[in-house]
Amino acid sequence: MSNVSIILAHPDKNSFNHAIATAVLDTLAANGNGINFHDLYEEGFDPMLHHPEFPKDASIPIEIQRHCEEISSADGIIIIHQNWWGQPPAVLKGWIDRVIRSGVAYEFLEGDSGECIPFGLLNANVGLVFNTSNTSLDRESQVFGDPLERIWKDCVFGLLWCGNCRKKSVYH
Amino acid sequence: MSNVSIILAHPDKNSFNHAIATAVLDTLAANGNGINFHDLYEEGFDPMLHHPEFPKDASIPIEIQRHCEEISSADGIIIIHQNWWGQPPAVLKGWIDRVIRSGVAYEFLEGDSGECIPFGLLNANVGLVFNTSNTSLDRESQVFGDPLERIWKDCVFGLLWCGNCRKKSVYH
Repeated sequence: MSNVSIILAHPDKNSFNHAIATAVLDTLAANGNGINFHDLYEEGFDPMLHHPEFPKDASIPIEIQRHCEEISSADGIIIIHQNWWGQPPAVLKGWIDRVIRSGVAYEFLEGDSGECIPFGLLNANVGLVFNTSNTSLDRESQVFGDPLERIWKDCVFGLLWCGNCRKKSVYH
Repeated sequence: MSNVSIILAHPDKNSFNHAIATAVLDTLAANGNGINFHDLYEEGFDPMLHHPEFPKDASIPIEIQRHCEEISSADGIIIIHQNWWGQPPAVLKGWIDRVIRSGVAYEFLEGDSGECIPFGLLNANVGLVFNTSNTSLDRESQVFGDPLERIWKDCVFGLLWCGNCRKKSVYH
């Protein structure tokens, strides 16, 4: 049995994103996995990262602590969101800003160049991102360069796996 | 005299982002430009786009209407933000989600392929994006592929200029 975190970020309960989330939840449950599920709009997640939350040892609200603990202990992370401007919606961007914290998901260490770079702390083996879009796949790749692939693979998950082990998988 | 919209998205009043904003404001004012300035954190901008705001003819709150009117009438748009995960912070992502609306900043029209694609409605001649980062320029370009360049140039401003005229300029 694995422990899977699922994050959903669409405001319409009748959306295809919600249908994907239902299918994901049903499948994981049928296979006996442990699930932590967050519908960020439904729970009224506050996406604003304010300055007092910056420090690694800052006092953070209990709901953010819970998100941090869940993501730390997850064996797999599944993100479901629509493509808005080649990026996640604000509520999910705020989840990244607030939950993917130093000391929780990464640690700054001095790299070979002397620059401090993030090394991953997450134990998850798999990150799986479902995106919906009103842009064709060809146009998404050729005109926009598939920005969500870059964001999730290179700019977020790629930095977070424990040891930054690129052998671990991100599927998008 | 030009009419310039300036959007700032850093939570710390002592930040370099705020210093950049002050320099921008002083310079534009000294040159006699009209200015609409928004410090999104200071004004408590709500970044959450909810479902009822989706339709082009939806009733939208007065503060969002004001943002829309300003961005429609701007001759130039200046965005100042830090690089958080190769993306804008959530508050600015929410500004895009809510203010860069259909009928205000773009219009969906049927393209040559039959797919509906956005055509720009903004009259601004220039978009200027200032980013601060704790990543070196080399690492930002080579490891991450300069995702903010892609986001602002290809995925946002590139779609919004009136007639999608690529001769207009985006500087980042």
